[in-house]
Amino acid sequence: MRKLAVSASFLQKDHCAKILETAQRCGFTPDFYIETPLTPSQAADYEVIYGEPSRKLLRAATSLRWFCSCYAGVEAITDDSLFHDADVLLTNSAGAYGLTIAEHITMVTLMLLRQMPACMEDMRKRRWKNVPSMRSIYGSSITILGTGDIGTQFARRAKALGAASVYGVRRSQKPCDSAFDRVYTNDQLDEILPQTEILVMALPATAETVGILSRERIALLPKNAIVINVGRGTAVDQDALMEALNAERIAGAALDVMVPEPLPEDHPLWSTKNLLLTPHISGQTSLPETVERNVDMFCRDLENYASGQPLAHLVDRRRGY
Amino acid sequence: MRKLAVSASFLQKDHCAKILETAQRCGFTPDFYIETPLTPSQAADYEVIYGEPSRKLLRAATSLRWFCSCYAGVEAITDDSLFHDADVLLTNSAGAYGLTIAEHITMVTLMLLRQMPACMEDMRKRRWKNVPSMRSIYGSSITILGTGDIGTQFARRAKALGAASVYGVRRSQKPCDSAFDRVYTNDQLDEILPQTEILVMALPATAETVGILSRERIALLPKNAIVINVGRGTAVDQDALMEALNAERIAGAALDVMVPEPLPEDHPLWSTKNLLLTPHISGQTSLPETVERNVDMFCRDLENYASGQPLAHLVDRRRGY
Repeated sequence: MRKLAVSASFLQKDHCAKILETAQRCGFTPDFYIETPLTPSQAADYEVIYGEPSRKLLRAATSLRWFCSCYAGVEAITDDSLFHDADVLLTNSAGAYGLTIAEHITMVTLMLLRQMPACMEDMRKRRWKNVPSMRSIYGSSITILGTGDIGTQFARRAKALGAASVYGVRRSQKPCDSAFDRVYTNDQLDEILPQTEILVMALPATAETVGILSRERIALLPKNAIVINVGRGTAVDQDALMEALNAERIAGAALDVMVPEPLPEDHPLWSTKNLLLTPHISGQTSLPETVERNVDMFCRDLENYASGQPLAHLVDRRRGY
Repeated sequence: MRKLAVSASFLQKDHCAKILETAQRCGFTPDFYIETPLTPSQAADYEVIYGEPSRKLLRAATSLRWFCSCYAGVEAITDDSLFHDADVLLTNSAGAYGLTIAEHITMVTLMLLRQMPACMEDMRKRRWKNVPSMRSIYGSSITILGTGDIGTQFARRAKALGAASVYGVRRSQKPCDSAFDRVYTNDQLDEILPQTEILVMALPATAETVGILSRERIALLPKNAIVINVGRGTAVDQDALMEALNAERIAGAALDVMVPEPLPEDHPLWSTKNLLLTPHISGQTSLPETVERNVDMFCRDLENYASGQPLAHLVDRRRGY
């Protein structure tokens, strides 16, 4: 029997049962590392590993033919030096997180438009006070950087909530989900930003996306714009964003990702005006739907792998996603 | 010319212009009280008043034929003693607030399911900490008490966000908006509550709705239930709700309405567990869409009134809405 290691702390009994059943059907013997994660010294035995991305683990995995990351972002594990052989397959779990992250984006968008952080601060101090003004998703102009699962799932929700326009922006022109009213390419971004009220960033970390929301582009946003980032903190010029927020040149921002993480206690982001911070939890794995999709995607790709079919969630290591 | 008073602080110039144009076309001379509200001593002159509900104003309005409340809830001004003549017409602005209140419900539902109050408290203390568990609107069982504009608008959003079931509960059986999977009557409520994960209350204050979420009914809710009230605080047995929350017999609640309002600084609601309080702002009138709909509805009814047609938003004073 071929050897498979499953190392993901968020898996419940029924998920493991499903993986066991699929693995056995595909000729694999799975070992489960749920309470204590797979260690580098154990990793050398396995042909397939499904779990949290770890550089140490990959370096030690000298029998590895396929690593499936249970996270979506894999920028930390794409360099060739980590793999004992250039042909080792890398897949990710982008596609499992769209639902929960789209709900996060919907929530923080409404919280910013409805001035919820200020209202909650008043409530905490037991001050009964109206908020000065509110805005609506209904009728708004939304631009989404990244048209993958997360961007698409949020686009659908934004349309259902009555957004006037939902534009996608992506690397290259490609037929895109009808959830978007129109899809632009990165080089057209400067034209759209001045008309964007709600800018959502759901991008993987790649050479092209690092710093994509530059100081110059932040300056193109209108005064009533809000920025929401759920991709990677490196996509934003964080200093320029803090300055724009503190000077009220834009209306607000919600960052679930930032640089660095965890954020040190003395970091100026903590005290930036109109900024709603969350500790990288938008794609939290406690949501049953997220874990189920994650496991389903792995099991389907395990069947593909065993039968010599192409893997559905293959990462292009050079492109970075 | 017949006399009309318009007394609502949230009106902007363009709203007043629209009312002026409609009024003149209908044979009315409108007086606008925007900065300073109409006083009782001025009220006696007017055949029609459009503005905030006020008992003093109504008592003094001895020429009044029609009062249009710019709010939805009119329970404070339905008693006959306020009107110089039993035939004075009363309308409300239910229908203007559905959009903004549905967005509020969507927001607080996601905030409760995603443990946002606890997360924001951690962030305020600069503690980078994962939240223990999250849930989703997707796949959830939702029951909405009240199938008017607010309930219907939220039902549509809940379906679009993937709720598994969205039930409405209303006073009497009537053909209802297709936004609901099924509509029950109040006497069937006890059967549905044990299967309800998200209970939304969007009811006017009437003899039938006061205390409708009784101690006995709170006890019927499952442990993972959350309760959201945007109607009137009197609909809930507040002491029983606080006890259920503090004992974690239900998972959470979001109250935008409560008894009394404003909430005194020493009230136990402030320190109730898993309770998200907002100061009666879900139907806030700063939202442009809300004000536009409000003004549109009044103008259309002014045309109805002038041409002797029935008013679209007439309140049954005995029923209370």
